[in-house]
Amino acid sequence: MNDISAFTGGDVKSLQHSLLEAMVLDPLKHPERSATTLARVVEVLGIIMDPHSDIDSLVARCRKAAGNPAPFDALSVGAATAVASVLLSSLSPEQIALASDFIMESELSTGEVVELHRKFKIPVSHLEDDMLPVNGEGARIQDSRGRVYIDLDSNYSATNLGNCNNAIALGLYNQARLLISQKEDRIQVARARFLKEITPMMPRGLNRFYWQNSGGEAVDKALKIAKAHTGHTGVVAFQGGFHGRTHGAVAVTCNESYRKPFGLHEESWVHFAPFNELEPVEELLKEGKARSVILELIQGEEAGMRPATEEFARGIRELCNEYDAVMITDEVQTGFARVSGGKGQWFACHRYGIVPDIMTIGKSFGGGYPVTAVVTGEKISSSMKAGYDGSTFGGTPMAMVSALIATRQMRALDLTVRVSEMSRLFAEKLAEIDSPHFRGFRALGLMVALDMDSPENVKKAQEEMMKGGAHSSLSTGSTMRLMPPLVITPAEVDHVVNAFRQALNSL
Amino acid sequence: MNDISAFTGGDVKSLQHSLLEAMVLDPLKHPERSATTLARVVEVLGIIMDPHSDIDSLVARCRKAAGNPAPFDALSVGAATAVASVLLSSLSPEQIALASDFIMESELSTGEVVELHRKFKIPVSHLEDDMLPVNGEGARIQDSRGRVYIDLDSNYSATNLGNCNNAIALGLYNQARLLISQKEDRIQVARARFLKEITPMMPRGLNRFYWQNSGGEAVDKALKIAKAHTGHTGVVAFQGGFHGRTHGAVAVTCNESYRKPFGLHEESWVHFAPFNELEPVEELLKEGKARSVILELIQGEEAGMRPATEEFARGIRELCNEYDAVMITDEVQTGFARVSGGKGQWFACHRYGIVPDIMTIGKSFGGGYPVTAVVTGEKISSSMKAGYDGSTFGGTPMAMVSALIATRQMRALDLTVRVSEMSRLFAEKLAEIDSPHFRGFRALGLMVALDMDSPENVKKAQEEMMKGGAHSSLSTGSTMRLMPPLVITPAEVDHVVNAFRQALNSL
Repeated sequence: MNDISAFTGGDVKSLQHSLLEAMVLDPLKHPERSATTLARVVEVLGIIMDPHSDIDSLVARCRKAAGNPAPFDALSVGAATAVASVLLSSLSPEQIALASDFIMESELSTGEVVELHRKFKIPVSHLEDDMLPVNGEGARIQDSRGRVYIDLDSNYSATNLGNCNNAIALGLYNQARLLISQKEDRIQVARARFLKEITPMMPRGLNRFYWQNSGGEAVDKALKIAKAHTGHTGVVAFQGGFHGRTHGAVAVTCNESYRKPFGLHEESWVHFAPFNELEPVEELLKEGKARSVILELIQGEEAGMRPATEEFARGIRELCNEYDAVMITDEVQTGFARVSGGKGQWFACHRYGIVPDIMTIGKSFGGGYPVTAVVTGEKISSSMKAGYDGSTFGGTPMAMVSALIATRQMRALDLTVRVSEMSRLFAEKLAEIDSPHFRGFRALGLMVALDMDSPENVKKAQEEMMKGGAHSSLSTGSTMRLMPPLVITPAEVDHVVNAFRQALNSL
Repeated sequence: MNDISAFTGGDVKSLQHSLLEAMVLDPLKHPERSATTLARVVEVLGIIMDPHSDIDSLVARCRKAAGNPAPFDALSVGAATAVASVLLSSLSPEQIALASDFIMESELSTGEVVELHRKFKIPVSHLEDDMLPVNGEGARIQDSRGRVYIDLDSNYSATNLGNCNNAIALGLYNQARLLISQKEDRIQVARARFLKEITPMMPRGLNRFYWQNSGGEAVDKALKIAKAHTGHTGVVAFQGGFHGRTHGAVAVTCNESYRKPFGLHEESWVHFAPFNELEPVEELLKEGKARSVILELIQGEEAGMRPATEEFARGIRELCNEYDAVMITDEVQTGFARVSGGKGQWFACHRYGIVPDIMTIGKSFGGGYPVTAVVTGEKISSSMKAGYDGSTFGGTPMAMVSALIATRQMRALDLTVRVSEMSRLFAEKLAEIDSPHFRGFRALGLMVALDMDSPENVKKAQEEMMKGGAHSSLSTGSTMRLMPPLVITPAEVDHVVNAFRQALNSL
């Protein structure tokens, strides 16, 4: 695209066309866009022009052509066309092509996007504004200034197949033109298609589904189903566990600061026990304090990717059998190959060789679409009654289209094998690193935990890695957490580990 | 399409093409579809052929051509092509065109779709399988057998703009090819665009947003925000209220059968009070038992569309001011013109002329995409802290694209005016009906409640109306609830009221 030869002779028309397409809003072709602002044009000129050239006078000419609008004003069709004329007469062909691309990706300036988010967000979480992502392919993500990073967050594992998806785009397009939404209770073709294909991927016997929208919601409903089935509200949860944020999901999440502001820190039905210790669990079950147990087999966010021991995982399964309790594994983050150690390990419970009674799934299997589920077997399912729950959006045709295409892609890519190979590659490369700031690592599939010497150095290393084109924002205490898209390539793994090594050297 | 003249001469090729396109799966053009089954072919022949013709022998030839598959087997490319050849040589041009349409809309038989749902659904709600919707336009919906109904459910108000949406289809297509998902915490262009356009539609001062996925989740988080802000867990909720199904949302939902199976019927932080009575609310606030009040200004599902009196709505606002309590209105179902009584009444609180402290919005504003929000003002927003909550899918680029396009459509259609006009039309027509089974009605915008003499007669009337092409499945006791898409036309309102009148006459 930067090749000058492409812009000689007959291609001038197509250059003009590209710039006008980017500058002037066409709601028929791009109903999702808004009108370009002068602030974005100015920002783009700053990116693409030589800093020693006379940017100011070009900006002044653009401003005048647009009729002196405020920076964040929507330019009218006339104003946008006039600015495009100024640019066409002032920039080189390569600059015009670049400007078209940049404005096409965002017609709003980075500064305005940041300002709007800061102003209008309820600050219940930390606003991440270190870069503005505008497009992504595979494991890479590009920001509004054209910088490219390897994505090490995958949106908490929601974009395991990468940050864009052309097949899902087309499938959703086709579906939305037919039937855009149907409530969970209603039969529909898209769900039938998905059910035909998903059941063979599931752990043995787990093939009854209740479709939801978020991971926390799936956990909340899994707890309701377990309580209704056992007729007992008591639940054992674990120190270091994270399960979501609704009243039910956060009540079984250990971090007290997530519960106390809402008075959810003293729920009588929740019993926290130490992770990887069986005795306290047995005591709670024996005393009749609980009839359900909920756990992540590999604890993510709160514990910095801490795996259950084999003994603990099997022990919980056996205790639940012995005391007729419901074992719930939360696989919202670990499911669909994230923690694969070999072929066919779609879920953490495959890795451990056990089958829970209820499983929650979410994040990645919609390929980016918000779809999650409670999954169980015939026994628990058949003790449910109509009226127990209900969902407007759970498992809509659009969600099912995304899930069908995403899970087909996972199988076509042989993702369980690929993940275990990339995990081994991470482990090999990381084992070679020798730094006083690096204490060790865990590579559980592509949940990769890097133990460092302090939380401060984690933050510093993340900032350094970003300069090296590797974007990671997840951490737990002194542990940096890497969760790249599962489609990461060997060369990209290399790049990430090198960026980490250089970051360590800079500390 | 049924016009025989269209299929002479040169159009035979296009007929062949249509049938092959429907019969043989092309994953590049239709990644959302699966392979055709013989059961669907047989079903379609039953729909399009004269019942006196020899369907059986044609079915036998199709089965043989396909190599005798089981009814629900996926036909291979070869088998599907062979069946298409049989059909091409046996059916008339009109029949071929019809068969192509039917199979294109669903390549699975209605029977198989029903069977898959029955088998794999966790039965926490009643499965609605009286018809299989395959496409919809405006207020109409077409089922797998080609029958067309006026939709009177709008998926609980989630498809207020109709059951398909070409502009949202295109917007989602464009967005998914760039960036398919971003966590709630991250800045992004699509959300900035939407923020620029949504704030003027909101009630005065309500312009801080926390994006969520389902209505129940938004209510759950609204309660958390209110509790954290007041430092008090106590909440007043109302008899007849419905707010959703998560632990938090169902705890403030009055119907005890929705809470008891999960041990959520004795939550000490919830205080139910009679709707439309101010004194009990004042007592609870005065005694310091609660610092938040949550209500639907027009109670939907549980109360059969029962409006707050003006006095009650204003009284709650004043009591909350007096006792420094947080007034939460749940506008998940009533928001975005559903209950409009005149220009600009986007929310029930506009209708009542009050502004709550927190509002939950959801369902319709995503145009079918799962997106909801907690909305509040600066004061409550600024008392929130990072770490209080977090969301993977809330307000993703795809959700924001849908919401932007849907709300633009609402304004372009002048929906608040349109709804108030259609509401008046419903009222005029319903007032003319005289039947011993019909006790009266309420038309609150396009929440229309028809009070009848018994729940049994509601069900019978709904079955009769379905025969007359008006599909309604919502009811509360003896009240039939109609919530058509807000794009319903005057002729369709006529049709619905006539279908209701005929149903009453049939009782």
